Amino acid sequence: MILLLGATGYIGEAFAKELQQRQKEFLPLSRAQMDYTRFDLLLEFLRTKKPAFVVNAAGYTGKPNVDACELDKAGTLVGNTLLPQTIAHACAVAGIPWGHVSSGCIFSGAKVFENGKTRTEKDFTKPELRALVENNPAVIRGFTETDTPNFSFRDQPCSFYSGTKALGEEAMAGLGQSYVWRLRIPFDEFDNKRNYLSKVQRYPKVYDNVNSISHRADYVKACLDTWELRAPFGIYNVTNPGFVTTRHVVETLEKILKPKHKFEYWSSDEEFYKVAAKTPRSNCVMDVSKLLAAGVKIRGVEEALLDSLNNWKAE
Amino acid sequence: MILLLGATGYIGEAFAKELQQRQKEFLPLSRAQMDYTRFDLLLEFLRTKKPAFVVNAAGYTGKPNVDACELDKAGTLVGNTLLPQTIAHACAVAGIPWGHVSSGCIFSGAKVFENGKTRTEKDFTKPELRALVENNPAVIRGFTETDTPNFSFRDQPCSFYSGTKALGEEAMAGLGQSYVWRLRIPFDEFDNKRNYLSKVQRYPKVYDNVNSISHRADYVKACLDTWELRAPFGIYNVTNPGFVTTRHVVETLEKILKPKHKFEYWSSDEEFYKVAAKTPRSNCVMDVSKLLAAGVKIRGVEEALLDSLNNWKAE
Repeated sequence: MILLLGATGYIGEAFAKELQQRQKEFLPLSRAQMDYTRFDLLLEFLRTKKPAFVVNAAGYTGKPNVDACELDKAGTLVGNTLLPQTIAHACAVAGIPWGHVSSGCIFSGAKVFENGKTRTEKDFTKPELRALVENNPAVIRGFTETDTPNFSFRDQPCSFYSGTKALGEEAMAGLGQSYVWRLRIPFDEFDNKRNYLSKVQRYPKVYDNVNSISHRADYVKACLDTWELRAPFGIYNVTNPGFVTTRHVVETLEKILKPKHKFEYWSSDEEFYKVAAKTPRSNCVMDVSKLLAAGVKIRGVEEALLDSLNNWKAE
Repeated sequence: MILLLGATGYIGEAFAKELQQRQKEFLPLSRAQMDYTRFDLLLEFLRTKKPAFVVNAAGYTGKPNVDACELDKAGTLVGNTLLPQTIAHACAVAGIPWGHVSSGCIFSGAKVFENGKTRTEKDFTKPELRALVENNPAVIRGFTETDTPNFSFRDQPCSFYSGTKALGEEAMAGLGQSYVWRLRIPFDEFDNKRNYLSKVQRYPKVYDNVNSISHRADYVKACLDTWELRAPFGIYNVTNPGFVTTRHVVETLEKILKPKHKFEYWSSDEEFYKVAAKTPRSNCVMDVSKLLAAGVKIRGVEEALLDSLNNWKAE
């Protein structure tokens, strides 16, 4: 039996759907049913029910966006840092392998490979970097699992959300048998306030940036595959290979969905942070070579984007 | 055997001294000797060495003061929130009782008992409250162990330090057998940069406020007494009964130590926070009835203050 924590969340429900499709016996658990943030309750549950694997899809994302995490620091820490530590401890004691939904948002920017050297660039609003993204995308490389997070409490500025996610990874590191599955901006064909493609359509103005993104069903399939393939435990970036600019997403969306409303963009980072956002946002490119090398199959980002828009289901 | 974590810190060394005086067998452990923030190492240690009790005197206080915690959020969280959770989990699994050095700084202000009613006041700079402190101190009551912290991530503004200490108490609550011993502004007769009486003498200007404070040796004795008396597990405020104003401390110090330098005060809260401090400071009065009711003896604050100054040992 697979224990699924946070089964009613946006990512948790995708895990539930995929586990059903795979005809896996699983137990979805919401915090209302059992407060699995309590170590004693969780450990007792693990010892009694002996799940073969635990999926932690619970976390605190902030509603409607990460700015809310700045106001609820306790909730954000409990959900994103203390909870993974608690699960790591309980699973280590009970000898049960598990996987954790983490986030790529603990990075900012990308790596650039030029003249035989790789350097890190943190800010896509830099015109030279943006020119490379547009004209020479092959030199843009993603962060790998061996890179140290550069958008965290240890490398500020960061959002409080990102800080707690990075510290959550630290809190579970080196303990027992665990996967860290890094998600990045989930999207798919189902209109939903958590769906990136829905958000883009509802923003008063669009913030043009560069990101790796994760198709929700592709993500959960890839996560479960790491376990089914018995990939080595550890961290895995789980995004659709490649990256997109927000402008490209909007243009593709305009072509396919033909929305009535005309998209506008924030004129600058300054305007965006002055008017629309309180805390710094992570925008980053992730490298998924490790995931692919482990034998996990996942569509490229353009295919996943086109497929979602071509099969768009309005809410 | 008693395991002492954080044995080389300001409070840890006082525990070590007192345990020696009591001729208790104990094992002082610094993080350099064993990284007890790692759950697996700590649990293995507890299972192998089977200490009768664990004292956690480790924590992250920020040097030279709590403003430093704003800059090292990860270190502050690891030391003050994740560590107590880790110890709580390991001690619960190993069935070992333990005590944690927490802090009264998760409160701000005091309770005021007037006209048969008790109200909470958060700010001693309020002139009416200050008048009560000077003219009618009997109505000033401290926060008890059943009061909810009002200077924490759940009740902002707070300092990052205070937020992590309050969340540390939450992270260990309800698990196994544990004491939470709340310290508040340690002082004693030994000149030291962590000693409140030394700090007051070294500040360019003094911030006049109202606080319960803890004589360091009195504090560790009282903490160990809760365990030796087998007081019920739970939270205990451990300060010298009563409270002091900074002005009173300075005047007493001037009379006894006759320092050459003349003390100056910040003219206002605004000036203090503009010039000397970055993050809000906790100033608060604690109630120690629960500690005293458990049979623990501890001197009143005035006696402890006079004793420290009369036996002052310059560094």
